[in-house]
Amino acid sequence: MTSRWMDEDLSRDRFLGGRLTLLQPRRGYRAGVDPVFLAASVQAQAGQSLLDLGCGGGVAALCAGARIPGMSLAGLERQAPYAELARRNAADNDLQMRVFEGDLATMPPDLRQLRFDHVIANPPFFRRDASVPAQAQDREGALGEDTPLDVWVAAAARRCLPGGYVTFVHRSERLPELLAAFSQCLGSIELKPLLPRAGRAAHLVLLRGRKGGRAAFRLHAGMVLHQGESHGADGADYTPEVSRILRDADPLIFAR
Amino acid sequence: MTSRWMDEDLSRDRFLGGRLTLLQPRRGYRAGVDPVFLAASVQAQAGQSLLDLGCGGGVAALCAGARIPGMSLAGLERQAPYAELARRNAADNDLQMRVFEGDLATMPPDLRQLRFDHVIANPPFFRRDASVPAQAQDREGALGEDTPLDVWVAAAARRCLPGGYVTFVHRSERLPELLAAFSQCLGSIELKPLLPRAGRAAHLVLLRGRKGGRAAFRLHAGMVLHQGESHGADGADYTPEVSRILRDADPLIFAR
Repeated sequence: MTSRWMDEDLSRDRFLGGRLTLLQPRRGYRAGVDPVFLAASVQAQAGQSLLDLGCGGGVAALCAGARIPGMSLAGLERQAPYAELARRNAADNDLQMRVFEGDLATMPPDLRQLRFDHVIANPPFFRRDASVPAQAQDREGALGEDTPLDVWVAAAARRCLPGGYVTFVHRSERLPELLAAFSQCLGSIELKPLLPRAGRAAHLVLLRGRKGGRAAFRLHAGMVLHQGESHGADGADYTPEVSRILRDADPLIFAR
Repeated sequence: MTSRWMDEDLSRDRFLGGRLTLLQPRRGYRAGVDPVFLAASVQAQAGQSLLDLGCGGGVAALCAGARIPGMSLAGLERQAPYAELARRNAADNDLQMRVFEGDLATMPPDLRQLRFDHVIANPPFFRRDASVPAQAQDREGALGEDTPLDVWVAAAARRCLPGGYVTFVHRSERLPELLAAFSQCLGSIELKPLLPRAGRAAHLVLLRGRKGGRAAFRLHAGMVLHQGESHGADGADYTPEVSRILRDADPLIFAR
Protein backbone atom coordinates (compact mmCIF):
# COMPACT_ATOMS: atom_id res chain seq x y z
CA MET A 1 0.00 0.00 0.00
CA THR A 2 1.27 3.45 -0.90
CA SER A 3 2.00 5.80 1.98
CA ARG A 4 1.18 9.48 1.72
CA TRP A 5 3.37 11.41 -0.67
CA MET A 6 5.55 14.41 0.11
CA ASP A 7 4.88 17.30 -2.25
CA GLU A 8 8.19 16.70 -4.00
CA ASP A 9 6.94 13.21 -4.88
CA LEU A 10 4.06 14.74 -6.83
CA SER A 11 4.01 16.25 -10.29
CA ARG A 12 1.50 18.88 -11.37
CA ASP A 13 0.09 17.93 -14.77
CA ARG A 14 -2.21 19.72 -17.16
CA PHE A 15 -5.23 17.97 -18.64
CA LEU A 16 -7.78 19.09 -21.25
CA GLY A 17 -5.62 21.91 -22.56
CA GLY A 18 -5.05 23.27 -19.07
CA ARG A 19 -8.70 23.25 -17.97
CA LEU A 20 -7.49 20.99 -15.18
CA THR A 21 -4.21 20.88 -13.30
CA LEU A 22 -3.89 17.67 -11.35
CA LEU A 23 -1.33 16.34 -8.89
CA GLN A 24 -0.05 12.88 -9.60
CA PRO A 25 2.60 10.78 -7.89
CA ARG A 26 5.84 10.84 -9.85
CA ARG A 27 6.09 7.13 -9.14
CA GLY A 28 3.05 4.91 -8.92
CA TYR A 29 -0.12 5.04 -10.95
CA ARG A 30 -0.08 7.95 -13.37
CA ALA A 31 -2.97 8.62 -15.70
CA GLY A 32 -2.48 8.08 -19.39
CA VAL A 33 -5.05 9.08 -21.97
CA ASP A 34 -7.40 6.27 -20.92
CA PRO A 35 -9.24 8.13 -18.13
CA VAL A 36 -9.48 11.22 -20.33
CA PHE A 37 -11.17 9.20 -23.08
CA LEU A 38 -13.39 7.53 -20.50
CA ALA A 39 -14.52 10.91 -19.18
CA ALA A 40 -14.98 12.30 -22.69
CA SER A 41 -17.33 9.43 -23.57
CA VAL A 42 -19.79 10.28 -20.80
CA GLN A 43 -22.88 11.81 -22.38
CA ALA A 44 -24.07 13.64 -19.31
CA GLN A 45 -26.25 16.67 -18.83
CA ALA A 46 -25.64 19.38 -16.30
CA GLY A 47 -26.97 18.35 -12.92
CA GLN A 48 -26.52 14.64 -13.45
CA SER A 49 -24.44 12.53 -11.09
CA LEU A 50 -21.36 10.46 -11.79
CA LEU A 51 -19.46 7.85 -9.79
CA ASP A 52 -15.89 6.85 -10.68
CA LEU A 53 -15.10 3.38 -9.31
CA GLY A 54 -11.42 3.07 -8.39
CA CYS A 55 -10.97 6.76 -9.02
CA GLY A 56 -7.28 7.04 -8.08
CA GLY A 57 -6.30 10.71 -8.05
CA GLY A 58 -9.62 11.62 -9.66
CA VAL A 59 -8.53 12.21 -13.24
CA ALA A 60 -11.53 10.65 -15.00
CA ALA A 61 -14.21 12.13 -12.72
CA LEU A 62 -12.61 15.57 -12.74
CA CYS A 63 -12.22 15.55 -16.53
CA ALA A 64 -15.95 14.83 -16.80
CA GLY A 65 -16.69 17.55 -14.28
CA ALA A 66 -14.51 20.06 -16.12
CA ARG A 67 -16.33 19.38 -19.40
CA ILE A 68 -19.91 19.20 -18.14
CA PRO A 69 -20.84 22.00 -15.75
CA GLY A 70 -22.88 21.27 -12.66
CA MET A 71 -22.25 17.57 -12.42
CA SER A 72 -22.37 15.90 -9.06
CA LEU A 73 -19.09 13.96 -8.85
CA ALA A 74 -18.18 11.01 -6.62
CA GLY A 75 -15.39 8.49 -6.48
CA LEU A 76 -14.57 5.27 -4.69
CA GLU A 77 -10.92 4.55 -3.97
CA ARG A 78 -9.38 1.75 -1.94
CA GLN A 79 -6.04 3.42 -1.25
CA ALA A 80 -6.29 6.30 1.21
CA PRO A 81 -3.41 8.38 -0.27
CA TYR A 82 -5.07 8.36 -3.71
CA ALA A 83 -8.45 9.24 -2.17
CA GLU A 84 -6.83 12.17 -0.41
CA LEU A 85 -5.13 13.21 -3.65
CA ALA A 86 -8.47 13.10 -5.49
CA ARG A 87 -10.02 15.41 -2.85
CA ARG A 88 -7.08 17.79 -3.11
CA ASN A 89 -7.25 17.76 -6.92
CA ALA A 90 -10.98 18.52 -6.84
CA ALA A 91 -10.49 21.42 -4.43
CA ASP A 92 -7.52 22.81 -6.40
CA ASN A 93 -9.71 22.91 -9.52
CA ASP A 94 -12.81 24.32 -7.81
CA LEU A 95 -14.79 21.15 -8.47
CA GLN A 96 -17.01 19.35 -5.98
CA MET A 97 -16.19 15.67 -5.66
CA ARG A 98 -17.13 13.34 -2.84
CA VAL A 99 -14.48 10.66 -2.45
CA PHE A 100 -15.33 7.48 -0.57
CA GLU A 101 -12.62 5.22 0.76
CA GLY A 102 -13.30 1.54 0.52
CA ASP A 103 -13.43 -1.56 -1.57
CA LEU A 104 -15.71 -2.50 -4.45
CA ALA A 105 -16.79 -5.71 -2.80
CA THR A 106 -17.45 -4.13 0.59
CA MET A 107 -18.63 -0.67 -0.34
CA PRO A 108 -18.98 1.97 2.37
CA PRO A 109 -22.58 1.98 3.66
CA ASP A 110 -23.13 5.67 2.80
CA LEU A 111 -22.14 4.95 -0.81
CA ARG A 112 -24.34 1.86 -0.93
CA GLN A 113 -27.34 4.12 -0.38
CA LEU A 114 -26.61 6.17 -3.48
CA ARG A 115 -27.39 5.69 -7.17
CA PHE A 116 -25.85 7.63 -10.05
CA ASP A 117 -26.79 8.62 -13.60
CA HIS A 118 -23.33 7.57 -14.77
CA VAL A 119 -20.87 5.08 -13.36
CA ILE A 120 -17.42 4.92 -14.93
CA ALA A 121 -14.37 2.76 -14.29
CA ASN A 122 -10.86 2.28 -15.56
CA PRO A 123 -10.04 -1.01 -13.82
CA PRO A 124 -6.49 -2.26 -13.29
CA PHE A 125 -5.02 -3.38 -16.54
CA PHE A 126 -2.75 -6.29 -15.77
CA ARG A 127 -3.72 -9.67 -14.51
CA ARG A 128 -1.60 -11.17 -11.77
CA ASP A 129 -1.64 -14.45 -13.62
CA ALA A 130 -0.33 -12.86 -16.84
CA SER A 131 3.00 -11.32 -17.63
CA VAL A 132 3.31 -7.78 -16.32
CA PRO A 133 5.20 -5.23 -18.41
CA ALA A 134 8.25 -3.89 -16.59
CA GLN A 135 7.00 -0.29 -16.53
CA ALA A 136 3.91 -1.38 -14.63
CA GLN A 137 5.62 -3.33 -11.89
CA ASP A 138 5.74 -0.36 -9.54
CA ARG A 139 2.02 0.18 -9.95
CA GLU A 140 1.14 -2.86 -7.93
CA GLY A 141 -1.43 -1.16 -5.74
CA ALA A 142 -3.39 0.45 -8.51
CA LEU A 143 -2.77 -1.94 -11.38
CA GLY A 144 -2.36 -5.33 -9.76
CA GLU A 145 -5.72 -6.85 -10.43
CA ASP A 146 -7.08 -8.68 -7.44
CA THR A 147 -10.74 -7.93 -8.08
CA PRO A 148 -12.25 -9.85 -11.01
CA LEU A 149 -13.78 -7.75 -13.80
CA ASP A 150 -17.25 -9.15 -13.26
CA VAL A 151 -17.17 -7.85 -9.67
CA TRP A 152 -16.29 -4.39 -11.00
CA VAL A 153 -19.13 -4.47 -13.50
CA ALA A 154 -21.69 -5.81 -11.04
CA ALA A 155 -20.70 -3.13 -8.51
CA ALA A 156 -21.03 -0.44 -11.19
CA ALA A 157 -24.45 -1.71 -12.27
CA ARG A 158 -25.68 -1.75 -8.67
CA ARG A 159 -24.70 1.90 -8.18
CA CYS A 160 -26.34 2.93 -11.47
CA LEU A 161 -29.84 4.42 -11.66
CA PRO A 162 -32.42 2.73 -13.91
CA GLY A 163 -31.87 4.17 -17.39
CA GLY A 164 -28.38 5.31 -16.38
CA TYR A 165 -25.13 4.35 -18.07
CA VAL A 166 -22.10 2.33 -17.05
CA THR A 167 -18.91 2.93 -19.04
CA PHE A 168 -15.58 1.14 -18.72
CA VAL A 169 -12.26 1.64 -20.47
CA HIS A 170 -9.99 -1.37 -20.64
CA ARG A 171 -7.38 -3.17 -22.69
CA SER A 172 -8.98 -4.77 -25.72
CA GLU A 173 -7.59 -8.20 -24.85
CA ARG A 174 -9.98 -8.27 -21.88
CA LEU A 175 -13.05 -7.59 -24.02
CA PRO A 176 -14.44 -11.15 -23.85
CA GLU A 177 -14.63 -11.09 -20.04
CA LEU A 178 -15.77 -7.49 -19.93
CA LEU A 179 -18.52 -8.01 -22.49
CA ALA A 180 -19.71 -11.16 -20.72
CA ALA A 181 -19.89 -9.23 -17.46
CA PHE A 182 -21.78 -6.33 -19.05
CA SER A 183 -24.21 -8.78 -20.68
CA GLN A 184 -25.05 -10.16 -17.23
CA CYS A 185 -26.39 -6.93 -15.76
CA LEU A 186 -26.71 -4.22 -18.45
CA GLY A 187 -28.42 -3.77 -21.82
CA SER A 188 -28.06 -1.59 -24.92
CA ILE A 189 -24.35 -2.37 -24.87
CA GLU A 190 -22.08 -0.35 -27.17
CA LEU A 191 -18.43 -1.00 -27.96
CA LYS A 192 -16.02 1.65 -29.18
CA PRO A 193 -12.58 0.35 -30.19
CA LEU A 194 -9.57 2.66 -29.85
CA LEU A 195 -6.81 1.96 -32.37
CA PRO A 196 -3.24 3.22 -31.98
CA ARG A 197 -2.99 3.74 -35.76
CA ALA A 198 -5.27 3.30 -38.75
CA GLY A 199 -5.51 -0.36 -39.70
CA ARG A 200 -3.93 -1.63 -36.48
CA ALA A 201 -5.65 -3.81 -33.90
CA ALA A 202 -7.41 -1.95 -31.11
CA HIS A 203 -5.39 -1.70 -27.91
CA LEU A 204 -8.17 -0.15 -25.83
CA VAL A 205 -11.93 -0.46 -25.76
CA LEU A 206 -14.66 1.70 -24.34
CA LEU A 207 -17.71 -0.33 -23.37
CA ARG A 208 -20.98 1.29 -22.36
CA GLY A 209 -24.17 -0.34 -21.15
CA ARG A 210 -27.48 1.01 -19.99
CA LYS A 211 -29.24 -0.21 -16.89
CA GLY A 212 -32.48 -1.78 -18.09
CA GLY A 213 -31.58 -1.02 -21.73
CA ARG A 214 -33.08 -3.26 -24.40
CA ALA A 215 -31.46 -2.05 -27.62
CA ALA A 216 -29.31 -4.43 -29.68
CA PHE A 217 -25.57 -4.52 -29.13
CA ARG A 218 -23.64 -2.07 -31.30
CA LEU A 219 -20.03 -2.28 -32.44
CA HIS A 220 -18.98 1.21 -33.48
CA ALA A 221 -16.24 2.24 -35.86
CA GLY A 222 -12.87 2.42 -34.14
CA MET A 223 -11.31 5.75 -33.18
CA VAL A 224 -7.74 6.12 -34.43
CA LEU A 225 -5.40 7.79 -31.93
CA HIS A 226 -2.25 8.58 -33.89
CA GLN A 227 -1.57 9.77 -37.40
CA GLY A 228 0.99 8.16 -39.66
CA GLU A 229 2.73 4.83 -39.37
CA SER A 230 4.99 5.33 -36.36
CA HIS A 231 5.36 7.51 -33.29
CA GLY A 232 6.56 11.03 -33.95
CA ALA A 233 9.59 12.02 -31.94
CA ASP A 234 7.55 14.53 -29.94
CA GLY A 235 4.62 12.20 -29.37
CA ALA A 236 2.32 14.94 -30.64
CA ASP A 237 0.92 13.09 -33.62
CA TYR A 238 -2.66 12.68 -32.42
CA THR A 239 -5.39 12.65 -35.03
CA PRO A 240 -7.47 15.85 -35.12
CA GLU A 241 -10.45 14.09 -33.48
CA VAL A 242 -8.30 12.85 -30.60
CA SER A 243 -6.48 16.13 -30.24
CA ARG A 244 -9.82 17.92 -29.84
CA ILE A 245 -10.82 15.44 -27.13
CA LEU A 246 -7.55 15.71 -25.21
CA ARG A 247 -6.89 19.43 -25.61
CA ASP A 248 -10.24 21.09 -26.33
CA ALA A 249 -12.34 18.91 -24.01
CA ASP A 250 -14.51 17.73 -26.89
CA PRO A 251 -16.82 14.80 -26.21
CA LEU A 252 -15.86 11.37 -27.53
CA ILE A 253 -18.80 10.36 -29.71
CA PHE A 254 -19.37 6.62 -30.21
CA ALA A 255 -21.54 6.92 -33.34
CA ARG A 256 -20.77 9.49 -35.97
CA MET B 1 -39.05 -27.38 -45.44
CA THR B 2 -38.15 -26.46 -48.98
CA SER B 3 -38.99 -29.04 -51.62
CA ARG B 4 -36.64 -29.70 -54.53
CA TRP B 5 -36.45 -26.88 -57.04
CA MET B 6 -37.19 -27.07 -60.76
CA ASP B 7 -34.36 -25.66 -62.85
CA GLU B 8 -36.42 -22.57 -63.66
CA ASP B 9 -36.54 -21.84 -59.93
CA LEU B 10 -32.76 -21.58 -59.84
CA SER B 11 -30.50 -18.75 -60.90
CA ARG B 12 -26.92 -19.26 -62.00
CA ASP B 13 -24.69 -16.69 -60.26
CA ARG B 14 -21.03 -15.82 -60.63
CA PHE B 15 -18.76 -15.57 -57.57
CA LEU B 16 -15.11 -14.53 -57.23
CA GLY B 17 -14.99 -12.83 -60.61
CA GLY B 18 -16.41 -15.87 -62.35
CA ARG B 19 -14.08 -18.44 -60.79
CA LEU B 20 -17.26 -20.06 -59.53
CA THR B 21 -20.73 -20.29 -61.06
CA LEU B 22 -23.25 -21.43 -58.49
CA LEU B 23 -26.91 -22.32 -58.67
CA GLN B 24 -29.10 -20.64 -56.09
CA PRO B 25 -32.86 -20.71 -55.57
CA ARG B 26 -34.48 -17.57 -56.94
CA ARG B 27 -36.62 -17.57 -53.80
CA GLY B 28 -35.30 -18.76 -50.46
CA TYR B 29 -31.84 -18.36 -49.00
CA ARG B 30 -29.52 -16.56 -51.42
CA ALA B 31 -25.94 -15.85 -50.52
CA GLY B 32 -24.87 -12.29 -49.99
CA VAL B 33 -21.29 -11.26 -49.53
CA ASP B 34 -21.15 -12.82 -46.04
CA PRO B 35 -20.17 -16.37 -47.07
CA VAL B 36 -17.65 -14.96 -49.53
CA PHE B 37 -15.97 -12.95 -46.76
CA LEU B 38 -16.13 -15.99 -44.49
CA ALA B 39 -14.37 -18.13 -47.07
CA ALA B 40 -11.83 -15.41 -47.83
CA SER B 41 -10.85 -15.24 -44.17
CA VAL B 42 -9.81 -18.90 -44.02
CA GLN B 43 -6.03 -19.05 -43.86
CA ALA B 44 -5.69 -22.57 -45.18
CA GLN B 45 -2.90 -24.38 -46.94
CA ALA B 46 -3.33 -26.77 -49.82
CA GLY B 47 -4.26 -30.20 -48.58
CA GLN B 48 -6.01 -29.00 -45.43
CA SER B 49 -9.60 -29.89 -44.67
CA LEU B 50 -12.59 -27.61 -44.17
CA LEU B 51 -16.11 -28.18 -42.87
CA ASP B 52 -18.92 -25.69 -43.53
CA LEU B 53 -21.66 -26.07 -40.91
CA GLY B 54 -25.07 -25.24 -42.35
CA CYS B 55 -23.54 -25.03 -45.80
CA GLY B 56 -26.72 -24.30 -47.77
CA GLY B 57 -25.89 -24.40 -51.49
CA GLY B 58 -22.18 -24.56 -50.66
CA VAL B 59 -21.16 -20.97 -51.41
CA ALA B 60 -18.70 -20.51 -48.52
CA ALA B 61 -17.00 -23.90 -48.80
CA LEU B 62 -16.74 -23.69 -52.59
CA CYS B 63 -15.35 -20.14 -52.44
CA ALA B 64 -12.64 -21.43 -50.10
CA GLY B 65 -12.02 -24.37 -52.39
CA ALA B 66 -11.79 -22.16 -55.45
CA ARG B 67 -9.20 -19.93 -53.78
CA ILE B 68 -7.04 -22.59 -52.10
CA PRO B 69 -6.20 -25.53 -54.35
CA GLY B 70 -6.30 -29.05 -53.04
CA MET B 71 -8.50 -28.47 -50.03
CA SER B 72 -10.67 -31.27 -48.76
CA LEU B 73 -14.16 -29.74 -48.53
CA ALA B 74 -17.14 -30.90 -46.51
CA GLY B 75 -20.49 -29.44 -45.55
CA LEU B 76 -23.33 -30.23 -43.18
CA GLU B 77 -26.80 -29.17 -44.25
CA ARG B 78 -30.13 -29.92 -42.60
CA GLN B 79 -32.32 -29.32 -45.65
CA ALA B 80 -31.97 -32.02 -48.31
CA PRO B 81 -32.65 -29.75 -51.32
CA TYR B 82 -29.81 -27.41 -50.28
CA ALA B 83 -27.50 -30.37 -49.66
CA GLU B 84 -28.28 -31.64 -53.14
CA LEU B 85 -27.68 -28.18 -54.58
CA ALA B 86 -24.30 -27.99 -52.84
CA ARG B 87 -23.30 -31.33 -54.38
CA ARG B 88 -24.42 -30.16 -57.80
CA ASN B 89 -22.58 -26.84 -57.41
CA ALA B 90 -19.39 -28.63 -56.41
CA ALA B 91 -19.59 -30.98 -59.39
CA ASP B 92 -20.40 -28.14 -61.80
CA ASN B 93 -17.25 -26.34 -60.68
CA ASP B 94 -14.99 -29.41 -60.64
CA LEU B 95 -14.54 -29.22 -56.89
CA GLN B 96 -14.71 -32.16 -54.48
CA MET B 97 -17.11 -31.55 -51.61
CA ARG B 98 -18.65 -34.15 -49.35
CA VAL B 99 -22.06 -32.94 -48.18
CA PHE B 100 -23.63 -34.55 -45.12
CA GLU B 101 -27.34 -34.23 -44.45
CA GLY B 102 -28.29 -33.76 -40.84
CA ASP B 103 -28.60 -31.53 -37.87
CA LEU B 104 -25.93 -29.83 -35.78
CA ALA B 105 -27.22 -31.32 -32.58
CA THR B 106 -27.56 -34.85 -33.95
CA MET B 107 -24.73 -35.03 -36.43
CA PRO B 108 -24.53 -37.96 -38.83
CA PRO B 109 -22.29 -40.69 -37.31
CA ASP B 110 -19.88 -40.67 -40.26
CA LEU B 111 -19.33 -36.92 -39.79
CA ARG B 112 -18.90 -37.34 -36.05
CA GLN B 113 -15.83 -39.48 -36.74
CA LEU B 114 -14.10 -36.67 -38.66
CA ARG B 115 -12.05 -33.66 -37.57
CA PHE B 116 -11.11 -30.71 -39.77
CA ASP B 117 -8.34 -28.10 -39.95
CA HIS B 118 -10.96 -25.40 -40.48
CA VAL B 119 -14.61 -25.23 -39.50
CA ILE B 120 -16.65 -22.31 -40.78
CA ALA B 121 -20.25 -21.24 -40.29
CA ASN B 122 -22.62 -18.51 -41.35
CA PRO B 123 -25.48 -19.22 -38.93
CA PRO B 124 -29.02 -17.97 -39.48
CA PHE B 125 -29.20 -14.27 -38.92
CA PHE B 126 -32.56 -13.53 -37.40
CA ARG B 127 -33.86 -14.56 -34.04
CA ARG B 128 -37.40 -15.84 -33.88
CA ASP B 129 -37.92 -13.70 -30.79
CA ALA B 130 -36.77 -10.52 -32.56
CA SER B 131 -38.36 -8.55 -35.35
CA VAL B 132 -37.65 -10.06 -38.76
CA PRO B 133 -37.09 -7.72 -41.68
CA ALA B 134 -39.71 -8.18 -44.36
CA GLN B 135 -37.24 -9.26 -47.03
CA ALA B 136 -36.15 -12.17 -44.83
CA GLN B 137 -39.59 -13.59 -44.11
CA ASP B 138 -39.45 -16.02 -47.01
CA ARG B 139 -36.12 -17.40 -45.80
CA GLU B 140 -37.69 -19.19 -42.89
CA GLY B 141 -35.99 -22.52 -43.47
CA ALA B 142 -32.46 -21.21 -43.72
CA LEU B 143 -32.67 -18.08 -41.60
CA GLY B 144 -35.18 -18.88 -38.91
CA GLU B 145 -32.93 -19.52 -35.97
CA ASP B 146 -34.02 -22.50 -33.96
CA THR B 147 -30.55 -23.63 -32.93
CA PRO B 148 -28.86 -21.41 -30.31
CA LEU B 149 -25.52 -19.90 -31.25
CA ASP B 150 -23.65 -21.71 -28.49
CA VAL B 151 -24.77 -25.04 -29.97
CA TRP B 152 -23.35 -23.97 -33.33
CA VAL B 153 -20.04 -22.96 -31.79
CA ALA B 154 -19.75 -26.09 -29.63
CA ALA B 155 -20.51 -28.28 -32.66
CA ALA B 156 -17.85 -26.43 -34.68
CA ALA B 157 -15.25 -26.79 -31.93
CA ARG B 158 -15.95 -30.52 -31.63
CA ARG B 159 -15.34 -31.04 -35.33
CA CYS B 160 -12.12 -28.99 -35.25
CA LEU B 161 -8.66 -30.57 -35.00
CA PRO B 162 -6.39 -29.44 -32.15
CA GLY B 163 -4.62 -26.33 -33.39
CA GLY B 164 -7.28 -25.86 -36.05
CA TYR B 165 -9.48 -22.80 -36.55
CA VAL B 166 -13.18 -22.08 -36.20
CA THR B 167 -14.50 -19.02 -38.02
CA PHE B 168 -18.02 -17.59 -37.95
CA VAL B 169 -19.59 -14.65 -39.75
CA HIS B 170 -22.59 -13.09 -38.09
CA ARG B 171 -24.47 -9.86 -37.52
CA SER B 172 -22.55 -7.64 -35.15
CA GLU B 173 -25.52 -7.34 -32.79
CA ARG B 174 -25.04 -10.99 -31.89
CA LEU B 175 -21.38 -10.52 -30.93
CA PRO B 176 -21.93 -10.77 -27.16
CA GLU B 177 -23.48 -14.26 -27.42
CA LEU B 178 -21.06 -15.37 -30.11
CA LEU B 179 -18.00 -14.22 -28.20
CA ALA B 180 -19.24 -15.85 -25.01
CA ALA B 181 -19.75 -19.11 -26.89
CA PHE B 182 -16.29 -18.93 -28.49
CA SER B 183 -14.72 -18.20 -25.10
CA GLN B 184 -16.22 -21.43 -23.76
CA CYS B 185 -14.44 -23.78 -26.14
CA LEU B 186 -11.80 -21.92 -28.18
CA GLY B 187 -8.76 -19.75 -27.56
CA SER B 188 -6.68 -17.14 -29.41
CA ILE B 189 -9.93 -15.44 -30.41
CA GLU B 190 -9.79 -12.70 -33.04
CA LEU B 191 -12.55 -10.31 -34.05
CA LYS B 192 -12.72 -8.56 -37.41
CA PRO B 193 -15.52 -5.97 -37.71
CA LEU B 194 -17.01 -5.30 -41.15
CA LEU B 195 -18.31 -1.75 -41.58
CA PRO B 196 -20.71 -0.74 -44.34
CA ARG B 197 -18.98 2.67 -44.64
CA ALA B 198 -16.04 4.40 -42.97
CA GLY B 199 -17.04 5.66 -39.53
CA ARG B 200 -20.28 3.66 -39.38
CA ALA B 201 -21.04 0.94 -36.86
CA ALA B 202 -20.13 -2.57 -37.93
CA HIS B 203 -23.03 -4.57 -39.33
CA LEU B 204 -21.14 -7.85 -39.60
CA VAL B 205 -18.38 -9.51 -37.63
CA LEU B 206 -15.95 -12.29 -38.43
CA LEU B 207 -14.90 -14.18 -35.33
CA ARG B 208 -12.09 -16.74 -35.37
CA GLY B 209 -10.87 -18.98 -32.58
CA ARG B 210 -8.22 -21.63 -32.36
CA LYS B 211 -8.79 -24.99 -30.73
CA GLY B 212 -6.41 -25.09 -27.78
CA GLY B 213 -5.15 -21.58 -28.57
CA ARG B 214 -3.74 -19.54 -25.68
CA ALA B 215 -3.03 -16.15 -27.25
CA ALA B 216 -4.80 -13.04 -25.95
CA PHE B 217 -8.01 -11.88 -27.60
CA ARG B 218 -7.46 -9.47 -30.48
CA LEU B 219 -9.85 -6.84 -31.84
CA HIS B 220 -8.67 -5.96 -35.33
CA ALA B 221 -9.29 -2.80 -37.29
CA GLY B 222 -12.59 -2.88 -39.11
CA MET B 223 -12.79 -3.54 -42.84
CA VAL B 224 -14.85 -0.93 -44.69
CA LEU B 225 -17.07 -2.37 -47.43
CA HIS B 226 -18.29 0.63 -49.40
CA GLN B 227 -16.71 3.87 -50.49
CA GLY B 228 -18.37 7.23 -50.01
CA GLU B 229 -21.32 8.20 -47.90
CA SER B 230 -24.23 6.45 -49.59
CA HIS B 231 -24.98 3.61 -51.96
CA GLY B 232 -24.02 4.24 -55.55
CA ALA B 233 -26.85 3.65 -57.98
CA ASP B 234 -25.06 0.65 -59.47
CA GLY B 235 -24.12 -0.86 -56.12
CA ALA B 236 -20.53 -1.15 -57.38
CA ASP B 237 -18.91 1.13 -54.85
CA TYR B 238 -16.85 -1.45 -52.96
CA THR B 239 -13.56 -0.32 -51.50
CA PRO B 240 -10.51 -1.61 -53.41
CA GLU B 241 -9.70 -4.10 -50.62
CA VAL B 242 -13.22 -5.55 -50.70
CA SER B 243 -13.36 -5.54 -54.47
CA ARG B 244 -10.17 -7.61 -54.59
CA ILE B 245 -11.70 -10.11 -52.15
CA LEU B 246 -14.99 -10.42 -54.02
CA ARG B 247 -13.70 -10.30 -57.59
CA ASP B 248 -10.06 -11.36 -57.51
CA ALA B 249 -10.41 -14.04 -54.80
CA ASP B 250 -7.93 -12.24 -52.55
CA PRO B 251 -7.72 -13.44 -48.94
CA LEU B 252 -9.37 -11.36 -46.22
CA ILE B 253 -6.52 -10.56 -43.83
CA PHE B 254 -7.48 -9.82 -40.22
CA ALA B 255 -4.25 -8.03 -39.26
CA ARG B 256 -2.54 -5.71 -41.66
